[in-house]
Amino acid sequence: MGFNMRDRIRAAGHEVVGYDRNPDVTDVGSLTELVERLEAPRVVWVMVPAGDPTRQTIAELSDLLSEGDLVIDGGNSRFTDDKINSELLDSKGVGYLDCGVSGGVWGKENGYALMVGGSAEHVERAMPIFDALRPEGPREEGFAHAGPVGAGHYAKMIHNGIEYGLMQAYAEGFELLEAAKVIEDVPSVIKAWQRGTVVRSWLLDLLVRALDSDPELDDLRGYVEDSGEGRWTVEEAINLAVPAPVISAALFSRFRSRQEDSPAMRAVASLRNQFGGHAVIHAGPSSGAGSTQG
Amino acid sequence: MGFNMRDRIRAAGHEVVGYDRNPDVTDVGSLTELVERLEAPRVVWVMVPAGDPTRQTIAELSDLLSEGDLVIDGGNSRFTDDKINSELLDSKGVGYLDCGVSGGVWGKENGYALMVGGSAEHVERAMPIFDALRPEGPREEGFAHAGPVGAGHYAKMIHNGIEYGLMQAYAEGFELLEAAKVIEDVPSVIKAWQRGTVVRSWLLDLLVRALDSDPELDDLRGYVEDSGEGRWTVEEAINLAVPAPVISAALFSRFRSRQEDSPAMRAVASLRNQFGGHAVIHAGPSSGAGSTQG
Amino acid sequence: MGFNMRDRIRAAGHEVVGYDRNPDVTDVGSLTELVERLEAPRVVWVMVPAGDPTRQTIAELSDLLSEGDLVIDGGNSRFTDDKINSELLDSKGVGYLDCGVSGGVWGKENGYALMVGGSAEHVERAMPIFDALRPEGPREEGFAHAGPVGAGHYAKMIHNGIEYGLMQAYAEGFELLEAAKVIEDVPSVIKAWQRGTVVRSWLLDLLVRALDSDPELDDLRGYVEDSGEGRWTVEEAINLAVPAPVISAALFSRFRSRQEDSPAMRAVASLRNQFGGHAVIHAGPSSGAGSTQG
Amino acid sequence: MGFNMRDRIRAAGHEVVGYDRNPDVTDVGSLTELVERLEAPRVVWVMVPAGDPTRQTIAELSDLLSEGDLVIDGGNSRFTDDKINSELLDSKGVGYLDCGVSGGVWGKENGYALMVGGSAEHVERAMPIFDALRPEGPREEGFAHAGPVGAGHYAKMIHNGIEYGLMQAYAEGFELLEAAKVIEDVPSVIKAWQRGTVVRSWLLDLLVRALDSDPELDDLRGYVEDSGEGRWTVEEAINLAVPAPVISAALFSRFRSRQEDSPAMRAVASLRNQFGGHAVIHAGPSSGAGSTQG
Repeated sequence: MGFNMRDRIRAAGHEVVGYDRNPDVTDVGSLTELVERLEAPRVVWVMVPAGDPTRQTIAELSDLLSEGDLVIDGGNSRFTDDKINSELLDSKGVGYLDCGVSGGVWGKENGYALMVGGSAEHVERAMPIFDALRPEGPREEGFAHAGPVGAGHYAKMIHNGIEYGLMQAYAEGFELLEAAKVIEDVPSVIKAWQRGTVVRSWLLDLLVRALDSDPELDDLRGYVEDSGEGRWTVEEAINLAVPAPVISAALFSRFRSRQEDSPAMRAVASLRNQFGGHAVIHAGPSSGAGSTQG
Repeated sequence: MGFNMRDRIRAAGHEVVGYDRNPDVTDVGSLTELVERLEAPRVVWVMVPAGDPTRQTIAELSDLLSEGDLVIDGGNSRFTDDKINSELLDSKGVGYLDCGVSGGVWGKENGYALMVGGSAEHVERAMPIFDALRPEGPREEGFAHAGPVGAGHYAKMIHNGIEYGLMQAYAEGFELLEAAKVIEDVPSVIKAWQRGTVVRSWLLDLLVRALDSDPELDDLRGYVEDSGEGRWTVEEAINLAVPAPVISAALFSRFRSRQEDSPAMRAVASLRNQFGGHAVIHAGPSSGAGSTQG
Repeated sequence: MGFNMRDRIRAAGHEVVGYDRNPDVTDVGSLTELVERLEAPRVVWVMVPAGDPTRQTIAELSDLLSEGDLVIDGGNSRFTDDKINSELLDSKGVGYLDCGVSGGVWGKENGYALMVGGSAEHVERAMPIFDALRPEGPREEGFAHAGPVGAGHYAKMIHNGIEYGLMQAYAEGFELLEAAKVIEDVPSVIKAWQRGTVVRSWLLDLLVRALDSDPELDDLRGYVEDSGEGRWTVEEAINLAVPAPVISAALFSRFRSRQEDSPAMRAVASLRNQFGGHAVIHAGPSSGAGSTQG
Repeated sequence: MGFNMRDRIRAAGHEVVGYDRNPDVTDVGSLTELVERLEAPRVVWVMVPAGDPTRQTIAELSDLLSEGDLVIDGGNSRFTDDKINSELLDSKGVGYLDCGVSGGVWGKENGYALMVGGSAEHVERAMPIFDALRPEGPREEGFAHAGPVGAGHYAKMIHNGIEYGLMQAYAEGFELLEAAKVIEDVPSVIKAWQRGTVVRSWLLDLLVRALDSDPELDDLRGYVEDSGEGRWTVEEAINLAVPAPVISAALFSRFRSRQEDSPAMRAVASLRNQFGGHAVIHAGPSSGAGSTQG
């Protein structure tokens, strides 16, 4: 993602020096060299995995940068990290913005939607870069200054929580259409939702694209990872006492998708077995079929 | 909706005679007159409330129409009604198509997405009308022949089930942003999701529109009706043994939105009261505030 | 279950003639013979599978019984069947009660809890049988006249819906304890909940029993059937617009437990794959492990 | 709760000195005096609100106690606090056990179920106190040494998460019975579940008790607080990637019970309003009824 963003910023006429641990793609050999190659006041965009890698990179930068420089964390950091990063940099006179970025591999072409947290002054300074990255069209339709430090990653976290719910809603609909006897051609139905319907969306377009090459979606297994943001959204719902039944159901469906067998459902099966009279399936290689116990 | 559709079909150059019980808007005084005014073979589009009104209209038409005519139920009928309607008309030599229509008040301008169930022959006969109604662009992106009789309403039912899930996902995200202290301007964040993001959609555009005129959405109460399709979708999930946690959570949230006080939660409160030591709130005019017991 | 109930009624001093299609266990060769062997006014307890078998048995009995006889449907019929059965018998002057029965294989020893629907007069007539079947202790703690015809099966349906929720709550707790690193001996923790806790119950006792013989519950697979009542409870929740998030979640968890792979989660996986950059697992024999794309 | 526990320990023949900030009930004037009044090696049971109060009390005790003493935190602390408390005390040579306690106001009479975390040696030392507190009957049915430090509070946390699910399951069943037309006497049905049924439990007995004095449970409002443990259980489910649809649904139902109006459902209402044609309810004093738009 970082490379695509670099290209987009360069295409807008800005000088960009990129550092990556991979010598094949990096412009410089170290963060130190990166800082040396740029004239102050610098803007450094950090785009590394959330958690320790981001925190370490920012700690390193805090030793290298000069007063008046500005760091933007464009990764998927938890919003609670932003205060720590910001305070560290602030103690050296370096500014900080957190920026949630949405767009995936499509961003190079379509532009990246940006949600930014930090001071108005810092936002204004970085605006040429944001303008280079964001999609064409009115600025406010692909860019928001969401609030103080942390607000950018917070907004991106909620964006991803919503994304979980949207994906699961389409997925349940897909499964229902697949299961229905009366529907003869599931892909054609979903394709027909692309124009004029209430459910039309970019995600729906992606689903149509997936169905074009794999009409029953059976090239993939129903095994779905989750990134931090979905979990953090539900944790925030708990912190704020906000009911989030749909987003949490989407998250739990992902957890469940990664289990070969559910311990909880073994407990339910064992309880039914205790009542007696219920068919149960014994574990183990020799028991593919069910057996009835009485 | 019927009027808008009539206009769209007329604009495409077709002759349309409309009947409505309201004398101010109808073209003819009765169904009988409507049938007389059209030359066979006729195509009659029924657009009345689901359930009894639709079934009665179709029963009436079955007595009036001639062999070779074709009836299209474009309302929100349950797919299980279609077989009954179809068999009744078939016994008189009249054809039947069921057509799920999506688009709401926006359909007049944008066109209506159409999901159709019935025979290929009947679909072909009605295609000029479908082409007049559907959105601009490739036919398959706003029209599907979903399968035999019933498939059109079935596809529309699932479309609406998905719609429930999508709306609830955005709604939970909105509530979380509203509750978060760090987000200063919720509408600007949601507005910024319109371009480049994973969650961009027509529903998101509508939410932006709603926030434009009511930035905290407090002109309306959080009271939400449900139509048949959401319920039927969950019932189908049960019939087909398909897990539908998101769509059902969205449906139950609507049920809950219509309760002043939840009997279930009174039961939970009374259980906590029985443990002792928990604060409870007594019902009745004199107890606006909480009181502690125990 | 029928045999155990026969024994319990006989033990209370009543004459019982049983008919079963299995010649090894039946007392008589046919329903006709059963009716002949009993003197009017008769009480006939029907205990056959819900749906067609029960409806057919009652239709047959309606032809054989005499005015003043009484039929009790003690099976797991849907409450909507009771009105049909009742009207059929009523047209012959035969009374009808529906009786929901809880207790499973433990009922022979502990007695069966009974929920009855029908007229007060019929309930009074059958009370000696109900008293023979119900558990020791105050009648009202194991027997209820719940309302008119249908109320008995309705009460049993809701009982089972609650049962689904209770079982799933324990099951989720079990899985959490199993997953927790800090808990060294899961069965001992659950065993310790049997006295003094808020969660103590008969189901908990059964779980302790299951853990006694299978401490990690891995003799069974987490594959769980559902009977009609759980489904009907959620359908009733929909009919009555009552939010039932817990009971429906329990039902959907059972549906999910029976899927090898989830079509819905294949759809979510395919959407993530479309974003790009996400690891997905390809289906098929040669791909046990995950592969990264993007 | 502390007083009841003191009485129970004293009744078992142990010397107990209690300290409470309330001068009317305390045995001594300060923690210092409490420590002075007891001979080493001491066992100090801490029973104060979770979070800061508990942590501060334990910090104070760490300064007052002597090597070889033992502190038991019997409050509802989060299991993550136990490691901190334990390490602090350990640095002074003072032992630590965490003890989850269930039983509420009923514990004085019935005894308290105890789940303990810590070393076997410390558990053995405190066993006479645990035996005084726990219910009559086999020790293992009301007491568990669940694992190392933290395991006791962890087990109690999961116990409470299950409790949330159980209460909500009964509550949904209650609401369904209330809403059903065919059920004439809801309390009598629930009362009849006390013996012989699958759903019989102590919570059910409490519900019967509540219905005895308030047959429609309308003396209380359906407003339900949540304590930390339900939230922590769902957070643990997220940490462990364990699906917990039932426990989370129960938690979210409590959150929802405390909202006058749901912001999320205002968002759904506003979206429906944007489609057009849907009835919405406007906020504000003059619009008690609904109005139709579109």
